[in-house]
Amino acid sequence: MSAGETLESYLGGKWVRGEGVETELVDPTKGSVLATASARGIDLKSVLEYARERGGPALRAINYAERAKLLSAIADVLVANRARYEEIAIANSGNTKLDAAIDIDGGIGTLKYYARLGTPLGAAKALLDEKPVRLAKAENFQAIHLMVPRHGVAVHINAFNFPSWGLWEKAACALLSGMPVLAKPASATCWLSHQMVRDVVASKLLPDGALNLLCGGIGSLLDHVTAEDVIAFTGSSNTASRIVGHRNVLARGTRVNVEADSVNAALLAPGCAPGTPAFDAFVKEVAREMTVKAGQKCTAIRRVFVPTERADNVAEALAARLAKTTVGDPRNETTRMGPLVSRAQQKMALDGIQRLAREAKFVSGSADAPKLDGIDNAKSAFVAPTLLRAQNGEGQTIHDTEIFGPAATVIPYKSEADAFALVARGGGSLVASVYGEDRDFLARAVTELGASHGRILAVEPSIADSHTGHGIVMPQCHHGGPGRAGNGAELGGLHGLSFYHQRVAVQGSSELLANLQAQAAPAH
Amino acid sequence: MSAGETLESYLGGKWVRGEGVETELVDPTKGSVLATASARGIDLKSVLEYARERGGPALRAINYAERAKLLSAIADVLVANRARYEEIAIANSGNTKLDAAIDIDGGIGTLKYYARLGTPLGAAKALLDEKPVRLAKAENFQAIHLMVPRHGVAVHINAFNFPSWGLWEKAACALLSGMPVLAKPASATCWLSHQMVRDVVASKLLPDGALNLLCGGIGSLLDHVTAEDVIAFTGSSNTASRIVGHRNVLARGTRVNVEADSVNAALLAPGCAPGTPAFDAFVKEVAREMTVKAGQKCTAIRRVFVPTERADNVAEALAARLAKTTVGDPRNETTRMGPLVSRAQQKMALDGIQRLAREAKFVSGSADAPKLDGIDNAKSAFVAPTLLRAQNGEGQTIHDTEIFGPAATVIPYKSEADAFALVARGGGSLVASVYGEDRDFLARAVTELGASHGRILAVEPSIADSHTGHGIVMPQCHHGGPGRAGNGAELGGLHGLSFYHQRVAVQGSSELLANLQAQAAPAH
Repeated sequence: MSAGETLESYLGGKWVRGEGVETELVDPTKGSVLATASARGIDLKSVLEYARERGGPALRAINYAERAKLLSAIADVLVANRARYEEIAIANSGNTKLDAAIDIDGGIGTLKYYARLGTPLGAAKALLDEKPVRLAKAENFQAIHLMVPRHGVAVHINAFNFPSWGLWEKAACALLSGMPVLAKPASATCWLSHQMVRDVVASKLLPDGALNLLCGGIGSLLDHVTAEDVIAFTGSSNTASRIVGHRNVLARGTRVNVEADSVNAALLAPGCAPGTPAFDAFVKEVAREMTVKAGQKCTAIRRVFVPTERADNVAEALAARLAKTTVGDPRNETTRMGPLVSRAQQKMALDGIQRLAREAKFVSGSADAPKLDGIDNAKSAFVAPTLLRAQNGEGQTIHDTEIFGPAATVIPYKSEADAFALVARGGGSLVASVYGEDRDFLARAVTELGASHGRILAVEPSIADSHTGHGIVMPQCHHGGPGRAGNGAELGGLHGLSFYHQRVAVQGSSELLANLQAQAAPAH
Repeated sequence: MSAGETLESYLGGKWVRGEGVETELVDPTKGSVLATASARGIDLKSVLEYARERGGPALRAINYAERAKLLSAIADVLVANRARYEEIAIANSGNTKLDAAIDIDGGIGTLKYYARLGTPLGAAKALLDEKPVRLAKAENFQAIHLMVPRHGVAVHINAFNFPSWGLWEKAACALLSGMPVLAKPASATCWLSHQMVRDVVASKLLPDGALNLLCGGIGSLLDHVTAEDVIAFTGSSNTASRIVGHRNVLARGTRVNVEADSVNAALLAPGCAPGTPAFDAFVKEVAREMTVKAGQKCTAIRRVFVPTERADNVAEALAARLAKTTVGDPRNETTRMGPLVSRAQQKMALDGIQRLAREAKFVSGSADAPKLDGIDNAKSAFVAPTLLRAQNGEGQTIHDTEIFGPAATVIPYKSEADAFALVARGGGSLVASVYGEDRDFLARAVTELGASHGRILAVEPSIADSHTGHGIVMPQCHHGGPGRAGNGAELGGLHGLSFYHQRVAVQGSSELLANLQAQAAPAH
């Protein structure tokens, strides 16, 4: 790909090019333009119709096991071309190799997971959600609940931080459910999504219209969605509000799933002294979460809750770890953390750090871009690992501000009740992790924090080395948080298919219901 | 209750009176004012805080079985006072005794159903949604999915047509889940809700702050909801859009469930001649659905799909049945159908019938109010049972127009594929019913129509006399439809509790998860 080349979109069964340039894709380490994208002038109404009328019926004509095979075949194509994806991720996203692996292998792994999960669903074309129930005196009249694939297009509007994982974790669930996909990656990093879809399209393994890619602006897309379509969005609360509140989306009642801002918490239990396994596991995980992908994960830890008497110890231990994080060009083998994906993101992160600094003091890092050897500060998008420390949890800025970069705030708490109440002030988050040796405390944390979170990771010493991490989204587990996190629900095994199915109560004769049951696979 | 008396609201642990008059509650048969309502000037922010801080913790402190007992006790109070409720329903809603029973006994029955369902959940305080799953190589690190009660207030904004059932079907699920309720009945018919809550409050069986009632306008209520609260709304799509798109609701990410417009369908299978059991069951159910509660049910049949060659037979058979429906003062024992609830609703229904008449011809009824013996047309809100007949299904007005009254359109279809496609043009509905003798046809109808419906009733001769009806919402079954019906999900057994719980993935040691599982009841 030569600089300035326009990335095409795969729509209506062919590669199409928009007019002019809507976005330049930039290397955030060097500032050079890598490619451009535009979807201007493309007729998005007929694009959606094509997917709805061609892709949908073709996918619904085959069964879950056959669709699972398609997911597996997509994964194989991606594995075969992996080296190229890593290069793109390093250049366009400023990823280290480890960061790139989380995105690329995360996407491939999720496809493989859903391929495995879909295979035993076999020849079924609907899912059976619940056991039959009697409704009246007559035994012959009963009800079952089926999940049947929806007839529209799954419109996926993805975030810039996971051009691979975001694409495939959503597509895996939609395709397995029998819904065609129109994926719209964030323009700034859509090169990787583009390359992957190009390889999958070239392999000709999917039915016509099943997988569509929009590189460039969203244009009038939302004016053309219908009651049958669904929209799954990952990104900022502001954009989420515009989608959910969009005139046509409201008028049609198009179903929307949102994964938005989340000021996630890590919580050290009372009584864990430095040197104990829980303390060490906590410090290690917070430092890792702050720096992996330069903190650009919707699940990354932003608030670090510690007992007041441990605040000094934690701040010191974290600062020591962060000081060892080599920041620089991700092409260097010694680099542990690269830049943010763009200068726009860098500015937003540094502005946010400045806001945090009104309620908290710097332990390490600052609200200025770091000076790095061989890096041009006028062109790059670096933010230093930045730790702040609040006096207490009373201010609201520390609970409201999601820095989408390598920054977090240590917040001391006075008591267990204080800790749980402070965590909830995030207004609903994707994930909280809790570290301690007292299993009863961990259980209480799950019950109390569960109401405002989509996932709780409870780390006790026995699993300190074997858990999958605070920030890693496992396809087996529910992904999505209440409140400002958007009330979304993705993944979580077969539960991830619910969004792409309609739950329908079927009332009828026992004989009819038995026939329908025999053709359905269990939803749980 | 003397005419002109202001209905109070039960908020913050006491009965409070708003300023002036916001709404007059009128007898739609006679036009006389029965009562007035106002919530003007009430501090709704502290009302929500009271419920959140008093009612929530008190309900969460007791377990599912104990909350189930409360539901049962509420039902007992309502049964004891039933005679008074019937009088109010006849006077304020224009209900016949049968209409009143659907509303009143439907509410009581749903409370009793959830009391029965909640009892075996026993001492648990959370629900276990799925089996434990392994996440990594280490066997000791696993995940479970819990449903934990949310910490906010369940705000219930109800429709005018079910002041009892709407109140209790929502409250039953919320209270059993451990969430306090703030119910806001539609002002025009809030007298019945008011009287029921007054009786329940007087019985002192619920914890302080658990059940709150707002009689009057919603005022600034939505400005004060938080991420922890939920809003369940039943009513028009327009109002639904205003709630979903409300600035504070979007900013906080308050979870919203919507049950909105629905142009429900009944479908006669090909080949059913007059005199066959399927034909007769179809005609009987359509006529019943058109006239029960004067067609003011969100589930009522609005579109009547028949094979082209049966259109004459069906229109004649329906017209004959409708002609026998005695319309008049619901206080008369011979009356089979009363007025709509208000003159505003009458005007909307007659306007809608006029719009339908552009695409369909009158078989019976008209776009004018009927002249009835002893009824003053200038004060009452009657609409005659009105059947229209379209030439075919091509126009869109017949698929888009929900007449909230005793009106429906016969729409001929040419083929099975035509029928399924036409039904889907409703843009998402609560319920469709299908009548026929060919079980394979019924099964195909379920699969095809399932994608755009929340419930399908399939009537074959063996259940013609024992099914529970197209329009009756059974608490065992999912209630809610996609698209313009709002994408909602209510009831459906334990599934109805999901909205009031947060689904949370818990990742931790097998020992911790086993402890949590032991304290949870199965969600399915």
